[in-house]
Amino acid sequence: MDQLTILKIGGNILDNQSLLNGLLDNFAAIKGNKILIHGGGKIANVLMKELGIEPKMVDGRRITDEKTLEIVTMVYAGSINKNLVSQLQARNCNAIGLTGADGNMIPAVKRPIIPIDYGFVGDIDTSLINSRAIQGILEQNMTPVFAPITHDGAGSLLNTNADTIASSVAIALANRYSVKLIYCFEKNGVLSNPEDDTTVIRQITEKTFIDYKSHGTIHSGMIPKLDNAFAALKAGVSEIIICGPNAFERENPIVGTLITL
Amino acid sequence: MDQLTILKIGGNILDNQSLLNGLLDNFAAIKGNKILIHGGGKIANVLMKELGIEPKMVDGRRITDEKTLEIVTMVYAGSINKNLVSQLQARNCNAIGLTGADGNMIPAVKRPIIPIDYGFVGDIDTSLINSRAIQGILEQNMTPVFAPITHDGAGSLLNTNADTIASSVAIALANRYSVKLIYCFEKNGVLSNPEDDTTVIRQITEKTFIDYKSHGTIHSGMIPKLDNAFAALKAGVSEIIICGPNAFERENPIVGTLITL
Repeated sequence: MDQLTILKIGGNILDNQSLLNGLLDNFAAIKGNKILIHGGGKIANVLMKELGIEPKMVDGRRITDEKTLEIVTMVYAGSINKNLVSQLQARNCNAIGLTGADGNMIPAVKRPIIPIDYGFVGDIDTSLINSRAIQGILEQNMTPVFAPITHDGAGSLLNTNADTIASSVAIALANRYSVKLIYCFEKNGVLSNPEDDTTVIRQITEKTFIDYKSHGTIHSGMIPKLDNAFAALKAGVSEIIICGPNAFERENPIVGTLITL
Repeated sequence: MDQLTILKIGGNILDNQSLLNGLLDNFAAIKGNKILIHGGGKIANVLMKELGIEPKMVDGRRITDEKTLEIVTMVYAGSINKNLVSQLQARNCNAIGLTGADGNMIPAVKRPIIPIDYGFVGDIDTSLINSRAIQGILEQNMTPVFAPITHDGAGSLLNTNADTIASSVAIALANRYSVKLIYCFEKNGVLSNPEDDTTVIRQITEKTFIDYKSHGTIHSGMIPKLDNAFAALKAGVSEIIICGPNAFERENPIVGTLITL
């Protein structure tokens, strides 16, 4: 099977133009099929503040009311997505910026309002991802750049977690490609001491993950990220790495945390 | 050659959800290859006002400074474009929302700053449009929806007039398809009396255009629209119509103004 590299970049990298530039250089240099998936960053919150709208969060998750959906659509699918596309085009990477609504590539279902009404938030059924359409774009030598927006197929856009989009797309394409999934964020990998960037855990297996969780070494936001990663490996994704923007060098093997079953 | 219908919709239709709904019904019902190209509408100005930014205009044209470029990118490529895509998907039209930066489909050049510095505004060289990439999307049974944003290939997005995008894309695709170009706006066509919507001029030729201009029947914003139309016909576009949203019915011939050489 052909190789496919899927790179997910988080908000803290998007918010730092110098980190982002280096990362885009490296991403553009990847040979073969590749997909970039980006999160949101602080820009949406900044814009909401300028417009006098108070971001609503529950347990670190955004509540997406109608006005918030409008703003994240503008910021994620407009500003961030199209600026990434133009910056990749300047690096001779033939990027095409997409949401899940485009070509119905990533349909979603509005999350049930019980126990918490998250508003216009979409959950993905991986089996419904239009992997043939994504493959069609790749086969035209274009590089999809996905914003974290999906749709319900009935006319409403939905806000969807970028990590979830990354693992879902990786799973959906795993029967067409040998998929390497890279989560790139501001740390050098999963750290045993979050204050010390040299304490990268080189490898995490399902078994050691349980230990790390029970000792509190791995906690909060990293847990759903790793849950997603293990689910993706079980569903056929070949390789998953969590790393920092500097670890991701074109000539070297990627240094970071390798996730394996 | 296969038929291709290119429909351009202006801001006044985008600003009226009821007109827009009818138009999207009719557009979705068009058989065969089709492309939708949209303008901006009032939403960008409303957002700028909310953010305390004064829109700068010279001769009815927007001056696109850096902050304005950021806003029109959000509104045109984010909000308007992706909402149109999701509304078309709800009508079983397999829309894909794009800017000229995506797949480098519509490269542009920043307009020279003399005599007027319009800022981040892009002019299109029709011969550089990537018609093969647009055809590739059509051949995957997807319907491109273009926002009026292009790029310079060096990392900067550019604001570009939607009428110009429509005629340029029509010309670029005229050697691959038999292209029908429809400009749809809030009037029923080109009117001999702008106050009376029943005075649609049924046909305008190059010769009668000169007469209408000299008598002042056709003036201001309609002149560049018709200049664009005649240039497109000379460059191989098969048919051009200027009409209103209600004239554009699925079963009937389109009623409006037919532009011919």
